[in-house]
Amino acid sequence: MHQSKILFRQLFEKSSSTYTYLLADPESQEGILIDPVKETIERDLKLLKELNIALKYILDTHVHADHITSSSELKEKTGAQIVLGKATNVECADILLADQEELKFGGLTIKAIATPGHTNGCTSYLCESYLFSGDTLLIRGNGRTDFQEGSSETLFHSVREKLFTLPDSTIVFPGHNYDGHLMSTIGEEKAHNPRLGLNKSFEEFKEIMENLNLAEPKKIDIAVPANLKCGRN
Amino acid sequence: MHQSKILFRQLFEKSSSTYTYLLADPESQEGILIDPVKETIERDLKLLKELNIALKYILDTHVHADHITSSSELKEKTGAQIVLGKATNVECADILLADQEELKFGGLTIKAIATPGHTNGCTSYLCESYLFSGDTLLIRGNGRTDFQEGSSETLFHSVREKLFTLPDSTIVFPGHNYDGHLMSTIGEEKAHNPRLGLNKSFEEFKEIMENLNLAEPKKIDIAVPANLKCGRN
Repeated sequence: MHQSKILFRQLFEKSSSTYTYLLADPESQEGILIDPVKETIERDLKLLKELNIALKYILDTHVHADHITSSSELKEKTGAQIVLGKATNVECADILLADQEELKFGGLTIKAIATPGHTNGCTSYLCESYLFSGDTLLIRGNGRTDFQEGSSETLFHSVREKLFTLPDSTIVFPGHNYDGHLMSTIGEEKAHNPRLGLNKSFEEFKEIMENLNLAEPKKIDIAVPANLKCGRN
Repeated sequence: MHQSKILFRQLFEKSSSTYTYLLADPESQEGILIDPVKETIERDLKLLKELNIALKYILDTHVHADHITSSSELKEKTGAQIVLGKATNVECADILLADQEELKFGGLTIKAIATPGHTNGCTSYLCESYLFSGDTLLIRGNGRTDFQEGSSETLFHSVREKLFTLPDSTIVFPGHNYDGHLMSTIGEEKAHNPRLGLNKSFEEFKEIMENLNLAEPKKIDIAVPANLKCGRN
């Protein structure tokens, strides 16, 4: 597969173990940020400036429950537009992308893939062979389905029918990781994901998800209302 | 520049903010690990197994003062050989690479670049356009020069004459980062490194290094003796 040159950076926010992604077209210097975090906005603005990138879009994969997006403040400071998946119905977004809808920045294209399950509005984004899977598909794991609009059945179908049908070589860049992994591939997750791998049935997945017994995310009561306003105070 | 296909993974160890790197030739499945950490050996062994990689070499960029290498235990479990820079004089190493010496794994080659300054034995490793700069060149920073065999003058010359003479597009993968950056480029560091950027003289660098007033690394009294034995207890 031909791969265009992409200026690409993965960035990490420690307190919520969130990955933020910067992609830009090195010709036009137009770029996008995926899942930027309030705590690291100064770092991200500095990097954009140093790399001389004109930010065109700020994309969130969903309405996060564990951290606050910096989208609104980034929009004020750069003029970029805020993008979320259609099913989020977030009013502060400039663009709500439906399944398979695309956006262009410079010579590059990013495509929305609706992957509900962790929340109804969860959207993965695909740029060439890079998949930004938010909290839908994590490395050897997946997002929780026990709060907000979570549904293990919906998530299972999103992963199996929409993400696992991408080429095995597709690189998976998740929304979070907690043990120092940064990336995976679709082929790897099909083979080694202990919940969603091809050797697991939906019944097995459902049982795993029903027995996780996780504590409520610490910031959910602050993060969700803030993120419904694109991180505005 | 032609770039071969490399199976590449950057991994993170939280407690010491250390990056470990896995590189392998996808054809032969032979691979190497750079700067593996004791705390994450199980994660790394699991990943090697899942990706079906035969570990050939375990390289350390230097005798670390802030974490203990897992090289010795990895060698026992995989049969790989332990590699360090010649000037470390570490007796437990199987191979001590001199400046510009190379090792092959599958169809790939990794070259040692002696970059003393943080310690005498500090060695950066270059594989195609990927530079593993250890604690010599960090993202917008550099390793300390105030303990062990540190010398700000030696480090300045290592960076300016041996690393900044690589192509600007060379990707810099450092030994550590503390604010969520994962990679940089030689061009970026020449332009934006606040200590070593081309707009700084040696006198300015020396003054910065003399006034850092950093605390002694917490683990130095445990880590250095352990790493001189390749992490053996």
